[in-house]
Parts: sequence; C-alpha cells; structure tokens
Amino acid sequence: MSDIAALKAALNGIRIEDNPAIVKQKSRDFFWYSPVLKRELDHVSGDLVVSPANEAEVIRVLKACYAAGVPVTPRGSGTGNYGQAMPLSGGVVLSLAEMNAVKAVERGRVVAEPGAVLAHIDRETRKSGQELRLHPSTYNTASLAGFVAGGSGGIGSINWGGLRDVGNVLRLKVVTMEEEPRVLELTGWDLHKVMHAYGTNGIVTEVEVPLDAAYDWVDVIVGFDDYLGAVRFANLIANQDGLLFKEIAAVAAPVPHDYFLRHQKFLNKTDSVVLLMVAPHAMDPFLALARREKAEIRFRSDTATEAEKKGLPPVFELTWNHTTLRGLRVDPTITYLQVLYPFPTHVESVARMTGIFGDEVPGHLEFIRFDGNVACTGLPIVRYTTDQRLDEIMTIHEDNGCPIFNPHRYTLEEGGMKRTDEVQLAFKREADPRGLLNPGKMVAWENPDFDWKSEKVFLFPGLRTAAE
Amino acid sequence: MSDIAALKAALNGIRIEDNPAIVKQKSRDFFWYSPVLKRELDHVSGDLVVSPANEAEVIRVLKACYAAGVPVTPRGSGTGNYGQAMPLSGGVVLSLAEMNAVKAVERGRVVAEPGAVLAHIDRETRKSGQELRLHPSTYNTASLAGFVAGGSGGIGSINWGGLRDVGNVLRLKVVTMEEEPRVLELTGWDLHKVMHAYGTNGIVTEVEVPLDAAYDWVDVIVGFDDYLGAVRFANLIANQDGLLFKEIAAVAAPVPHDYFLRHQKFLNKTDSVVLLMVAPHAMDPFLALARREKAEIRFRSDTATEAEKKGLPPVFELTWNHTTLRGLRVDPTITYLQVLYPFPTHVESVARMTGIFGDEVPGHLEFIRFDGNVACTGLPIVRYTTDQRLDEIMTIHEDNGCPIFNPHRYTLEEGGMKRTDEVQLAFKREADPRGLLNPGKMVAWENPDFDWKSEKVFLFPGLRTAAE
Repeated sequence: MSDIAALKAALNGIRIEDNPAIVKQKSRDFFWYSPVLKRELDHVSGDLVVSPANEAEVIRVLKACYAAGVPVTPRGSGTGNYGQAMPLSGGVVLSLAEMNAVKAVERGRVVAEPGAVLAHIDRETRKSGQELRLHPSTYNTASLAGFVAGGSGGIGSINWGGLRDVGNVLRLKVVTMEEEPRVLELTGWDLHKVMHAYGTNGIVTEVEVPLDAAYDWVDVIVGFDDYLGAVRFANLIANQDGLLFKEIAAVAAPVPHDYFLRHQKFLNKTDSVVLLMVAPHAMDPFLALARREKAEIRFRSDTATEAEKKGLPPVFELTWNHTTLRGLRVDPTITYLQVLYPFPTHVESVARMTGIFGDEVPGHLEFIRFDGNVACTGLPIVRYTTDQRLDEIMTIHEDNGCPIFNPHRYTLEEGGMKRTDEVQLAFKREADPRGLLNPGKMVAWENPDFDWKSEKVFLFPGLRTAAE
Repeated sequence: MSDIAALKAALNGIRIEDNPAIVKQKSRDFFWYSPVLKRELDHVSGDLVVSPANEAEVIRVLKACYAAGVPVTPRGSGTGNYGQAMPLSGGVVLSLAEMNAVKAVERGRVVAEPGAVLAHIDRETRKSGQELRLHPSTYNTASLAGFVAGGSGGIGSINWGGLRDVGNVLRLKVVTMEEEPRVLELTGWDLHKVMHAYGTNGIVTEVEVPLDAAYDWVDVIVGFDDYLGAVRFANLIANQDGLLFKEIAAVAAPVPHDYFLRHQKFLNKTDSVVLLMVAPHAMDPFLALARREKAEIRFRSDTATEAEKKGLPPVFELTWNHTTLRGLRVDPTITYLQVLYPFPTHVESVARMTGIFGDEVPGHLEFIRFDGNVACTGLPIVRYTTDQRLDEIMTIHEDNGCPIFNPHRYTLEEGGMKRTDEVQLAFKREADPRGLLNPGKMVAWENPDFDWKSEKVFLFPGLRTAAE
C-alpha cells in the first residue's frame, strides 16, 4: 500500500476517493447478471477512485501510475454486464464521470467528453433536431466512452448496425500509459484499436459520433398468442424499407407479463410481445400494416392517457439488457445469453431453439442490421440451474449455427469473437507497455498461449490469487 | 370540336391555353427516350391545356369534362419517360403546375400541392433541417404528384426503397371524375389505389410525404478499370450499415467519359465509375474504406475548387434517367432498359449480363433497398439497332432471372408488373366510371381480355385510329 500512498501524494489536486466502501461500490458494474461472474468477481475492488476533471489530469494520473506500477482501470458509469470496468488487480479506478461536457454539436455529429451520459448528450443535440444514432438501454445512465469501449450496439442498431460498423464512431482521442503519455487522435480503421477494448490499451478523453434526425418516438407494444408469431411480425416490419423504427424487439411469454411489472396492466399472461419505438410519421402506415397482419396493439404512448403513462418506463427500458434486469428483479435465479441468429435463416434458427428449450430459455430477440441485412441478436432469459447446463445450452446453440457471445466471461476474447484481436494487441504493446491498463481482460496479452479450443475457463492469475 | 368549344365556355375564369403549338408541347413528356414510343406517340396532342389554380377549379374542370365526355389527362412537369402524361385520346391536358404551394412542414413530414416542384419543396423543408426521402434525377423540374403518380423511386431509394413501400407516401387527396366529383383522403393501403396509376383513376390535389434529415451531400465519383470492380465496390459500400449515402450508382465505360461531358475532365476514357452522394459526416469513414479497397476518387465536391465546379451539374443529374438523357444528347441512336437484378444474386446477374452483351448494353446500376435488402435496379444503355433485337435483349434478361420493366410501352401494365392491378382497376370503376381519365394507359380497363402471355403489343384503339 505504500505505492498507493505515494501515488496519492503525486496526484495532489486531483479528486480522489479512498473510503473502502465507496471504492468497492465504484469498482463494480452489472457483472452480477451472470451467476458465474457473480461468484468470480464479487470480491473485486480497487484501492482508490481517481476522478480527473480534464485531459491534463488524465495525463498526470497515467504518468504517475506508470511510474508507480499501479494498475488503472477506466470507468464510465459502470453499466456494463461483463465486468468490463472491474479492477481485477486493484489499483486505481479511473472514473471519467466528471469529464462529461458536450463540446460541440454540428450538423450530423457531436463531440463530447468520455463521461457524458447519453441522455444528456441527446438533450444538447435535440436543440438542433438531432439525436444519437445508437444507445444502450442504459441510455439514462451510461457514458459515451463506456458505450464505445464496452458496448456493441443497441437501440438504433435496426437502422445503423453496431458500433463496430465503419461510420458509427468518427473520432477518438486516446491517452497512452507510457512514461510520457501521448495524446493520439484516431479515425478510420485506427478506431478499431481501442473500440470495444474495455480500456485495456488507452484512456479515451474525447469522442466524436454521428447524429441522426431526432423524433419523439412512439412507444408501442404489440401482443401475440405465440412467440413465433411475434418474431415473424417483428421480422416483417424490420424489412419494410419505408417504415422508420428506432427499436424492434420480440420477447416470449411469460416474460412480458411476469417481468414488465409497470406495463403488466396492458398485457395478458400469455402475451409474447413486440416492443417498438416508432417514428411519429410512421405510425399511420405502421398501424395499417399491423391491422393487415391482425396484430393487436397492447400499448401506444401517443394515445395513452397521462394516468396510464404515470410511472411507466420508456419501452427501450424493457429491451436489450434491461429485459434481463427486469427479470432479475422478479426472479434473481435467472440469467441470460447473448446469441446471434444470422441472416437469412434467423427466423428458422429462433424457431429451432424455441422448440429445443421451451420455457427453460424464454426468447428475447433484438432486430438489427448486420452486414447490410436484417438479422437478430438474442438475449434470451435462461432459467439457470447449473454451470454445466448453462454451458450445454450454449453448446447446443453453437451446434445449431447460432454463435454465442458468452456473457459469463469477463475477458474480451471469451465474451467476444473468441479469437485474438491482433490490432488491439499490437496497440496495447505500444500504448500500455507495462500492461497496467485494465489488467486481466485481454487474454492475448496475459496468456498468449491460451488454447481457445479447450473448454478451460481463463482466469487471470492476479484474480485467482486474490480470490483464493 | 363543338364539345371543346362548349367546354371552354363552361370553364370560364379558369386558365386555358389552346394555341395548338403550345398545347402539343404541353402534351409531351420524355417518351422519346424510347425509339418505339417515339414512333407511336410523336403525333399525340391534347385539344387544350387547362391549368386550375386550386382544388375547387379542379372539381369544376372534372365536372364539366364528365358532362361533356371529354377525356382529361393530368400532368405535372412532364418529366416522365413512359408517355405517362400524354393524352392519347386528345381532350384536356390538366396541368397541375399552378397548384404548387408547400402547405405545411412539420417534424418528419411535408404537405404540398400536386404541382410543387421537388427542389422547391426541399428549399422550404430545409429551413427545419429536413428534406424529401426520395426524388428522381429530375429533382429540379419534376412535380410531387407527378413523381407519386408516375414514378417508382430514385435518389434516396438506397435508404428507403421505393414509393410503393408502405410509409413513403403518407396521404393523398384525390378528386374523382363523376357527375358530382368527390374529394377523397387516402391513407394506408388505400394509397395504392392511385399511386403509380398515371392519373387514370383520380386527380391528386394534395400530397403528404415523410421527410428525412437534410445534409449538404458530397458528390463523389470513384473510378475503376473494370465495370465489375465498380459494381462490387458499390455493393460493398451499400451494405455498410454505418455509412450514410443518398445515392449509389455504377456506370460502365465508356459511358461516363463519353456522355458525362461536363465531368469528362475528371475521367479516363476507360473509367467505369461509382456515382455517390455521401453525407458530410460519412466522408472520413467512407474515404478510409475507399483507401482500403484501393478505389480511386476522381472527383469530390467538398474539396473541388470553384473553378473545377463551375458549370458542373450535381452528380444526381448523372444518375437514374439522367444517365440515358446525357447519352441521348451525344448519341441519339441509343436507348435503354429498366431491369431488376434481385437480391442476393444481383452482382452475379450483372456479371452474367455484362458477359453476354458487352458494349451493346453498357451497364448502369442503381443500388436500392428492396424488401429489406440491398439489390440493384438497372437502366443500362442499349445501342439500339432494331425493335426485334431490343425485344431479344429483354427476353435474354428475363430468361436469366432479371425482370424487365419495359420502358418502351406506355401502358401501366406493360411497363410495370405485367399483370392487372385489381385495386387500381376497382378504384377506376368507382372514380372514373366513364373512363375519361388518361384513357389508354390501363390495359385492364381498355381491354380486359388482353393476353399478357402473348407477345402482341397493346395499342390503345383510340390511339391506333389517330396514328393511322
């Protein structure tokens, strides 16, 4: 701890928090969605939280920590689900929440500091009739750089694909962790060096992303007697080129009635639903299509009374990771998966998985654009029993051509594409030569010989020590 | 002609033109793109042009013409290519050009009169940062109702599909041609009663269409050594979900150099090109992608000097039907086709057709969204020799799975889906019981027993008499 004491002295003038209870709280994210991660990461805590007010202070922190050999794990709002922001080796939790200015709004783009909360950015951009293309369901709390460094897509992905798609992030400013930290501006392909790298190879200090036309989206819930009816309707409307949605999800019964408690009064117990954000000027044609398909509207925010809407969360807070969150509040024993159902067989794949698992894995689909086509990614609820069965469920999905992005692993590779990202690894060698940034999250760095084909779970050595 | 004289008296106070030279000029459109239509329709003329100033005058004209049994053929700006607006049986040419007000601009939508020119509408909507989703290459002259009644899509279809797609037209006001004309408001599926019906079953007096975010689109021309390289690049970028384009076309050598005379200075003789309108905030990521693909930028309007840009038309005036127009100005013996290359085999289909026809049919593709996927429609140049060879070229396309929308026919069915549109036919029975609206354009009305499988060309009897 003498390292830490010396470090605190070196950071004189920068906001620091070392109350252990608060530090532990600020060392956590939503890892506890996973029973596996809950066991593995529950004890994790940093040694102190440092909250720089500007880029110059970020540079001072990184320089001092580099000199002291103290790990630094960056953090936005801590809304991730993979333990992205958890300091496995202790050290400094670098909170970027204070760096939250919206610096410039131009036609088609916004520049903001890393800790700017997405809803706050939109409030600024809406003054010019614009809003973010993409946001997670944690829109009201998540930070911009946290989304870029730890997220993949979300609301808006039905129009724009994922964050990884070229054009969805325009520019990042990144500070390296070297003896003399450098400030780099990344654009084009260089963005992939640090996007979705969990802050393992640089600290983001400025983000530029594109904007889209802002609308007062209408929340709509459509009810169906069977899940596949909901899925087919969602797929039908997602492929209507002239209709504008910001969000299209399908959720299987009994999840909507049992877990969406604020909306329960609108739902039947047997309802599978399609959850939508519809552009106001698309409502008339959408309703014409819904009538033709005999789809029943359970809720629409544009005609609901104030009394009906009182206390209701927005529909996007029923989607993506919020679906699971609402489930966990009712039944803490459940967990979830992340699945890709690739185009063009996505609907058939969903039907097959639904047939195999039934109510053990109630379906939840998010319709997205993926390489130019409409496909769906799934975040099905899992009625968890054992780790072994959870693994089995994932294996069956993969054996049926539905890749899993394992949300029960905290490393980039295990939760992601299951292979080394050579671009990110090379940039880490350059930008974090001592390996102090968010240690334990990039397997390729920690354990270059790790065998992806083996079933053994990667446990960061430092963490294993701490956990023992 | 006594009918016409009586009619003129009945229309006292409404603007009328009966100078035969002017009436003939106002009876024409761009039918002469087709050597076939040029022979068949060149003599066509109405008897007088009537230009109502408002809906009340439209009602007076239709009531009077109904009583007199005089045909009425509506006309916007006369920019069609299929003879849509040509009065095959003479009578009244109903010019809606004077009804050109932009009545309301709201968030996501605009309401305008039928004769409002698209570029004029955009000038009004741009005040709120919005623009039309879709427009033809005749943006600077075409009218809104003419586009809706006689067009199918165009610039913007890469994002929104075609006019036929639900959501791309929100509402139409239509006046019927009955003893007592009615004013109907059509929304939802009812819109299909009169959309792309050439004004055969109602006169449009008001149009409501959706808007999109307006940008100062950057014109870009990318050069390639071979056409299929251009096609593959166009297809690659069209499938990038995070990049925003308003227009993506591919044109085979030697068309760009030989026909795009104002842009010739930027082009090599051997260049096949991709023509683009790129959102300003998509330029950086687009250029990163272009560099990766070793695509050579021949022209970009955002960095061109004023001297370079002097006299240049916008890139969209090199696309869609303007490609053919520029060709016809250089070589009046050429003509063109309209082809669909369906997803997912569109690129292979283009390669096959290019292999079969070579320079007899230089390629021209427009990338569009079609039923949720990226496909392309083609308007290839045809080095015309005989009608027989032209038919043969079309047959070979259809035999290879590339449907033709024959631009050498003036009827709705022959130029369109080659089958009776029962909805439009039923609405014509209701809205035009005497068959006086744009006679000769709807085969199902004129000749219900016409055999679509036969190769015989439908010639409207009234026209045949006139032509003999």
